[in-house]
Amino acid sequence: MENRVYNFAAGPSMLADEVLLAIKEELFNYHGSGMSVMEMSHRSKGYLEIFEKTKNGLKKLMNIPDDYEILFMHGGATGMFASIPLNLTKGKTADYIITGNFSKKAADEAKKYGDVHIAYDGKENNYTHIPDENELSFSADPAYIHLCANNTIYGTEWKSFPVNHKTTLIADMSSDILSKPVNVSDFGLIYAGAQKNMGIAGIAVAIIRKELIEEADVKVPSIMNYALELKHDSMLNTPATYPIYVLGKVVDWLEELGGLAEIEKRNIEKAKILYDYLDASKFYKSFAEKESRSLMNVTFSCGDPDLDAAFAAKAAENGLCNLKGHRLVGGLRASIYNAMPKAGVEKLIEFMDDFAREN
Amino acid sequence: MENRVYNFAAGPSMLADEVLLAIKEELFNYHGSGMSVMEMSHRSKGYLEIFEKTKNGLKKLMNIPDDYEILFMHGGATGMFASIPLNLTKGKTADYIITGNFSKKAADEAKKYGDVHIAYDGKENNYTHIPDENELSFSADPAYIHLCANNTIYGTEWKSFPVNHKTTLIADMSSDILSKPVNVSDFGLIYAGAQKNMGIAGIAVAIIRKELIEEADVKVPSIMNYALELKHDSMLNTPATYPIYVLGKVVDWLEELGGLAEIEKRNIEKAKILYDYLDASKFYKSFAEKESRSLMNVTFSCGDPDLDAAFAAKAAENGLCNLKGHRLVGGLRASIYNAMPKAGVEKLIEFMDDFAREN
Repeated sequence: MENRVYNFAAGPSMLADEVLLAIKEELFNYHGSGMSVMEMSHRSKGYLEIFEKTKNGLKKLMNIPDDYEILFMHGGATGMFASIPLNLTKGKTADYIITGNFSKKAADEAKKYGDVHIAYDGKENNYTHIPDENELSFSADPAYIHLCANNTIYGTEWKSFPVNHKTTLIADMSSDILSKPVNVSDFGLIYAGAQKNMGIAGIAVAIIRKELIEEADVKVPSIMNYALELKHDSMLNTPATYPIYVLGKVVDWLEELGGLAEIEKRNIEKAKILYDYLDASKFYKSFAEKESRSLMNVTFSCGDPDLDAAFAAKAAENGLCNLKGHRLVGGLRASIYNAMPKAGVEKLIEFMDDFAREN
Repeated sequence: MENRVYNFAAGPSMLADEVLLAIKEELFNYHGSGMSVMEMSHRSKGYLEIFEKTKNGLKKLMNIPDDYEILFMHGGATGMFASIPLNLTKGKTADYIITGNFSKKAADEAKKYGDVHIAYDGKENNYTHIPDENELSFSADPAYIHLCANNTIYGTEWKSFPVNHKTTLIADMSSDILSKPVNVSDFGLIYAGAQKNMGIAGIAVAIIRKELIEEADVKVPSIMNYALELKHDSMLNTPATYPIYVLGKVVDWLEELGGLAEIEKRNIEKAKILYDYLDASKFYKSFAEKESRSLMNVTFSCGDPDLDAAFAAKAAENGLCNLKGHRLVGGLRASIYNAMPKAGVEKLIEFMDDFAREN
């Protein structure tokens, strides 16, 4: 694969070469079907095989227990921000832990539909910090506790999840799902937009304990109704068939290279060399608190907006793309999801070193 | 392109060879960017160019006036069934014309959110018929009139649209958009799931008169809020980036071959040879009323469920795939969207002739 760049975008983001090669191989004619997966009816035998294989592959890869269901939902994580309170509050208060932009958005959306209690808000420390268990204050009897496992914009990530509670934990894992093993049973619902570690934009993957799904209020839009989607196995209407297929390819690739324990090892290694470099550097400044740092999104800066802009521009000329930080944080951000090879991080560090010397 | 079949699926459905070739060509490296469109951040310059080009191309192709906006929405047409009443009834009654399964679903979804008046229901003639203007009875002051322009399951299609009304006409054109020129100004909102004539599953395209978009009720889920999506140019959250890109390729292809007048000519020709054959045949029976027949979905049967099943199976062996009718109608259905070449229809007729002789 020629002339490919290292794409550090926060999402949609880089795909593994193996995934793109598998897609290209099957583009015109999937397994002798005479058609592209893009052209397959979602009700056809051929597509249903892909669909089941993807679900079963994900179940195996994440070690998802039998009492959980995988739903492919429309509208990305932002769709989930609405469907979660619409389906799961059942008249009770919902607790939200705010550690960044997306957990704030999730809480704001939930406020439309019922009582929301903010169990923690990291605003005052500018979201550089993931709270300890004792920093959280839950309401008396919440329907659930919602958190965002990895904060793409700020570059922070939960290392372990709250256990001192008697309710259902819900995690938006949009930017760190499949980056490491997770004990699914600790959660009532794990969900993720697919466009970071699960392939391409167009689906939200929801892994939900089946007993949580009850008949939803009649006012819930059908495409957001978990009971309906469960009944129809995510085919209440035409699902985003191609993103589901690409997810299957991502799952195959991860399984092939050794599963989530192996990718975690690689992710730790990749992040370590970058953070070690940042910590040793006098030129660059790391954004997130050390203990809260994300393995997926590394936020830093040159300490000067103009230098940061020059850095991002010059890096792009060198095949290191999309390093500009999010406007809420400024600076720079290297998103190093599963598909980013170690070589990409090494090349980035080399560039950083050159840039620091020159500036 | 070798060993491709003719795919008569109702959707997701066949793509033109030209579209698939363009996709494959750019799969690893879009215009020297060093990345696939699948990997592009929706906020990146490269992707925004694709996005704008797609919107502008569609605007030109459909001759969409300046006072309309194109929105890319989540959740397919079924998502629109909810978002339309949520955004546009504004406390008034909504009128629905029911000519098949999907217009019925649209009306049922709207009933969740307000008063619905059924202006016509074709149930008693088993949805073989598209009503004349004088068969419609509208309510006194409806917020809008909703209809489904082409009924995929029953194989019927509106030839001209109601004009004797003083309100906003909304049309679900999921299965005949881009098949012929349409006067956009006759409608307040035209929408379509992309997976038939607009590419692949994952987006609903909404073409809406801007003045209809007002601040929606606070209870509307953000991803269904037209005012929010308009404000964010369909990027309130990550849109389904790849389906939008594929739509752009479809638009390029149609523009290249001569636009909607030309594709209409071809569609009329394709449908005519198939309907003429059906009308001349004593073996096959056409489902829809002659005057209401769809150019996109041709419903027929051998008059016997076992024979129909044998037909579909044998046709598939001959590279004519997905001809089984929808379970609500039974029989057979040939979906001959824009991407189905005349040669595919000719091969189908040849097969039909052989099958009729043998049975």
